[in-house]
Amino acid sequence: MKRIGVLTSGGDSPGMNAAVRAVVRKGIFEGIEVFGVYSGYQGLIDGKISKLEAGDVGDIIQRGGTALYSARCPEFITDAGQEKAIAHMKEHGLEGLVVIGGDGSYRGAMALTKKGIPAVGVPGTIDNDIPGTDYTIGFDTALNTVIEAIDKIRDTATSHERTFIIEVMGRDAGDLALWAGLAGGAETILIPEQAFDLDDMIDRLEKGKKRGKKHSIIIVAEGVMSAQELANLLSEKSDTETRISVLGHIQRGGSPTARDRVLGSLFGARAVEALLKGEGGQAIGMVNNKVVDYDMEEAFKLKRKVDMSLYNLSKELSI
Amino acid sequence: MKRIGVLTSGGDSPGMNAAVRAVVRKGIFEGIEVFGVYSGYQGLIDGKISKLEAGDVGDIIQRGGTALYSARCPEFITDAGQEKAIAHMKEHGLEGLVVIGGDGSYRGAMALTKKGIPAVGVPGTIDNDIPGTDYTIGFDTALNTVIEAIDKIRDTATSHERTFIIEVMGRDAGDLALWAGLAGGAETILIPEQAFDLDDMIDRLEKGKKRGKKHSIIIVAEGVMSAQELANLLSEKSDTETRISVLGHIQRGGSPTARDRVLGSLFGARAVEALLKGEGGQAIGMVNNKVVDYDMEEAFKLKRKVDMSLYNLSKELSI
Amino acid sequence: MKRIGVLTSGGDSPGMNAAVRAVVRKGIFEGIEVFGVYSGYQGLIDGKISKLEAGDVGDIIQRGGTALYSARCPEFITDAGQEKAIAHMKEHGLEGLVVIGGDGSYRGAMALTKKGIPAVGVPGTIDNDIPGTDYTIGFDTALNTVIEAIDKIRDTATSHERTFIIEVMGRDAGDLALWAGLAGGAETILIPEQAFDLDDMIDRLEKGKKRGKKHSIIIVAEGVMSAQELANLLSEKSDTETRISVLGHIQRGGSPTARDRVLGSLFGARAVEALLKGEGGQAIGMVNNKVVDYDMEEAFKLKRKVDMSLYNLSKELSI
Amino acid sequence: MKRIGVLTSGGDSPGMNAAVRAVVRKGIFEGIEVFGVYSGYQGLIDGKISKLEAGDVGDIIQRGGTALYSARCPEFITDAGQEKAIAHMKEHGLEGLVVIGGDGSYRGAMALTKKGIPAVGVPGTIDNDIPGTDYTIGFDTALNTVIEAIDKIRDTATSHERTFIIEVMGRDAGDLALWAGLAGGAETILIPEQAFDLDDMIDRLEKGKKRGKKHSIIIVAEGVMSAQELANLLSEKSDTETRISVLGHIQRGGSPTARDRVLGSLFGARAVEALLKGEGGQAIGMVNNKVVDYDMEEAFKLKRKVDMSLYNLSKELSI
Repeated sequence: MKRIGVLTSGGDSPGMNAAVRAVVRKGIFEGIEVFGVYSGYQGLIDGKISKLEAGDVGDIIQRGGTALYSARCPEFITDAGQEKAIAHMKEHGLEGLVVIGGDGSYRGAMALTKKGIPAVGVPGTIDNDIPGTDYTIGFDTALNTVIEAIDKIRDTATSHERTFIIEVMGRDAGDLALWAGLAGGAETILIPEQAFDLDDMIDRLEKGKKRGKKHSIIIVAEGVMSAQELANLLSEKSDTETRISVLGHIQRGGSPTARDRVLGSLFGARAVEALLKGEGGQAIGMVNNKVVDYDMEEAFKLKRKVDMSLYNLSKELSI
Repeated sequence: MKRIGVLTSGGDSPGMNAAVRAVVRKGIFEGIEVFGVYSGYQGLIDGKISKLEAGDVGDIIQRGGTALYSARCPEFITDAGQEKAIAHMKEHGLEGLVVIGGDGSYRGAMALTKKGIPAVGVPGTIDNDIPGTDYTIGFDTALNTVIEAIDKIRDTATSHERTFIIEVMGRDAGDLALWAGLAGGAETILIPEQAFDLDDMIDRLEKGKKRGKKHSIIIVAEGVMSAQELANLLSEKSDTETRISVLGHIQRGGSPTARDRVLGSLFGARAVEALLKGEGGQAIGMVNNKVVDYDMEEAFKLKRKVDMSLYNLSKELSI
Repeated sequence: MKRIGVLTSGGDSPGMNAAVRAVVRKGIFEGIEVFGVYSGYQGLIDGKISKLEAGDVGDIIQRGGTALYSARCPEFITDAGQEKAIAHMKEHGLEGLVVIGGDGSYRGAMALTKKGIPAVGVPGTIDNDIPGTDYTIGFDTALNTVIEAIDKIRDTATSHERTFIIEVMGRDAGDLALWAGLAGGAETILIPEQAFDLDDMIDRLEKGKKRGKKHSIIIVAEGVMSAQELANLLSEKSDTETRISVLGHIQRGGSPTARDRVLGSLFGARAVEALLKGEGGQAIGMVNNKVVDYDMEEAFKLKRKVDMSLYNLSKELSI
Repeated sequence: MKRIGVLTSGGDSPGMNAAVRAVVRKGIFEGIEVFGVYSGYQGLIDGKISKLEAGDVGDIIQRGGTALYSARCPEFITDAGQEKAIAHMKEHGLEGLVVIGGDGSYRGAMALTKKGIPAVGVPGTIDNDIPGTDYTIGFDTALNTVIEAIDKIRDTATSHERTFIIEVMGRDAGDLALWAGLAGGAETILIPEQAFDLDDMIDRLEKGKKRGKKHSIIIVAEGVMSAQELANLLSEKSDTETRISVLGHIQRGGSPTARDRVLGSLFGARAVEALLKGEGGQAIGMVNNKVVDYDMEEAFKLKRKVDMSLYNLSKELSI
């Protein structure tokens, strides 16, 4: 393999730039040429492809978002879209591709691999929901953004002795809510992986009040219900008046944390190594504190599980 | 005057603790005793009052919220509520009161002053909407919280080439939206003080697209309309698809900026000086970069104006 | 005037990019062309000059440093250097120049103006030491960087009940030390404008210990002496053991605060207006909360004074 | 075991408070009483011990430093000191102790265990240098503090096209320098575990210049040499002029990151479980992404190694 491409796809996440930088520089270090594809798979279809030198990825490691831009691309799901992309890749002599993104992005990489273009997946998403890896790039930054928000809201909650409901991202995965709730000292954490128990929740709030708690913070992953719905439920079924905060898109941005930069660097470099093996189809991940590559398709047959020991600990510590 | 009280009231704002610290220590420096009243006017009614020493306000200057707690207090609007408060003040020998808060808090201070208890107002609110002062304590911190959020959202907006609507606090005052929009490089800023012109807004968005803008950021003060309403309007009347973000309560919290700590310190100290003059009824403020005290009642007859030169400049610079 | 240049010179300061953006966009708004000069006066001498469009200054308002680069340039002090610069300006048709920087930069602007090329100065320096303006661009950001450092060191100082000496920038001007000391709750602040009194300082430290202070923070401007020298003095003349921290270059960097971005925007736009008057020789500033332009040469005959009321207040509040 | 103590010892590190909170609340959850010991082993010797309820550790998870204070305590190395401590523990009925700190603190825990008082160690140090655990509490926060500093200095380095040497903590362990260098995009990283090669370093700097690098950042762990010594070497042996920055004590403070709060919570809770087994002598750690306890004495016979794959990667990526 003498020439490869790299793209970012799906929702952007902080640390993607570290991964792009690592792919480019590790590629150059290995003696191959690396081309950037702009705006995800759409750029592959449109031929928005250009060569990247070491200097082109200088001064991006500290920036949020992705310097290669990203986009959703429904056209790439179609056979016709994939053929256009492959034509452009051949035109530029690209023999392999590193795809940085979430599970939708991985599906594209699998499709390309099956059509004979080796592609490798790097997990870039704040949701931490890619099967086969303990952590994804962007999770740590999003987590710290959430706890900074919790800390700010706690100032107000404490000053006014109020109960706050904070809605965080996570349609199917509760990792962000769970870690943020534990790190933020939340009284209650609602995650999609755990059945919602309103009575237990009201019970805990009452106990907290009796113990003299000045304020209470509830974290809810958007996949469970919206903060507003929860507030309505609480005001109907108990006398708990709450304020709500929906953190929204700030969770995707910001300068990446050290860990996400290191993770992005490790994963990007490993992706180049995996690609150079020639077959494609691997996903890069961190398992038990070690960087690994593994079969993407096999991993997607398994379901990722949230760490319930964190959930249980958060209950024990928020007494 | 030998003994005074200090309370924080209404919505909390970062820097209130610097003001409390300054009232206590300036009081002690002037040879008087200072008592903290907890949970605003409610604490005055309930007699939650205790003496503060210099050490009691150590290590609070850097904290958000208010160490004296705050609360809304409808009872204090009534004559009976005020009499209860005055009785508690007399009981503790308090001859004057420093009130840190927004315009509702000022009304309480005026009521007390009229009943013979000299009270002085210190402007503590993130809205920057107190007549007679150029700046209020908490505005600068809230402003920086907002631009950090804008910076994060810009990462995502740029990566996806999207238009974002960001809703910030400000029911009647557009200062926060205006300053944040100018500092955040927003394309459009909607404030309550300026008539909303949908056609002009759409026109600007179109021009930006033609010029090749990768993304667009619209700041809307909550007093104009909600981000969701604006998004609906834009999708109805143009082909602009937007994402929204409602910043909400994070705007009230956080460690105060240097400026808010200095402002709080200056205002708290000046409040003690004003109170020692004996009459009460003054508000403390910053006018033309100088700390002043002025007649609270007179000032409230005037309407505070937003600085339209900032508004015009933001339009010129967001071409 | 149809075509002007803009450069940044001397030590960089956060907010310079906001000023550059404002010069470019205000210029375009006024119907003139704006050229960027790279690496300060050196770029003028070397002819590193190129046209800037509105889009070229997009997405820089939030970045620290200067997108136009900066450099010291001894050659520009010479007549020969200035003639080379003027030749390059004429070659590119530049009829005026906006210079963003500190006092050395202003001297260059005055020299050019005297030679018939109108130049205007915009105060960009973290030291807040330009005569004729209350604030310079970058001061507020540096100040907040310093208080974040103080807050971190206070964590350690409190945990270990130690006395810390923190050295901040400021050879001749104590503004940064003074504001940071007041905002950071420092016990003692040493500034170049105030005679150093070791006995008084030791006396205050002793009193604090007696009152039960858990820790003590001393801020010293580098122009008074180094933190190490002060630590040596204290260990010789008293039994106070101290730890030192020299903040150094982190004080120059970082994403600018809201205030520095607004100041940069206001100053940059006003500089274009001043330049269009045709004569040059003005400095832009903020006086009593209003943007002004004033005669640069006259102002430099006066000496800037630090606000001693802040100094006195900090003493009263750190009892 | 019905009653245990908890103390923090040695240099403070962010996240210690999360560990203290977890020890207290997990203890209460398990039905035992937990007592706080103030100022480390010194407090044990002096009998500064008092009971902690769940509410006493509320609102500390987000704070830097340690709410239990810390101190060095040479007296505890002596047999007499240890006996005093044990006497105070017996007086308060403490049957076990959780010690949060670095390797010095662990030695104390081993001594107590040998004298029949079960003690368990929790790794709290920014240096990440405790044998037997992949991560220590405080390392992640310190790391992020360092990269924020690097990001700020990079602004200035880029603007002026300069080479900077940044000295970070780490007498014997290079983890902080290594991770920060990789995350900060440093060109060169000097760690105690790797022999210093001046020629190689100068060679890399020269290559970077030739490739057109606008700036260069060198990270040096204090255990290798001081930034000043390195600057002197570089100016003697090459024509590289450098600026230096010594980050110092800011590296110990600051609100802990999410990861350090989670780590502190996990470790604190596990320490209680380990102590309840009755023997003492265990250290708590994270190995391969799992919380473990292990024999403290055995682990200290081994030498902790830095991850050289990170070192090699940083070299490959900083071409």
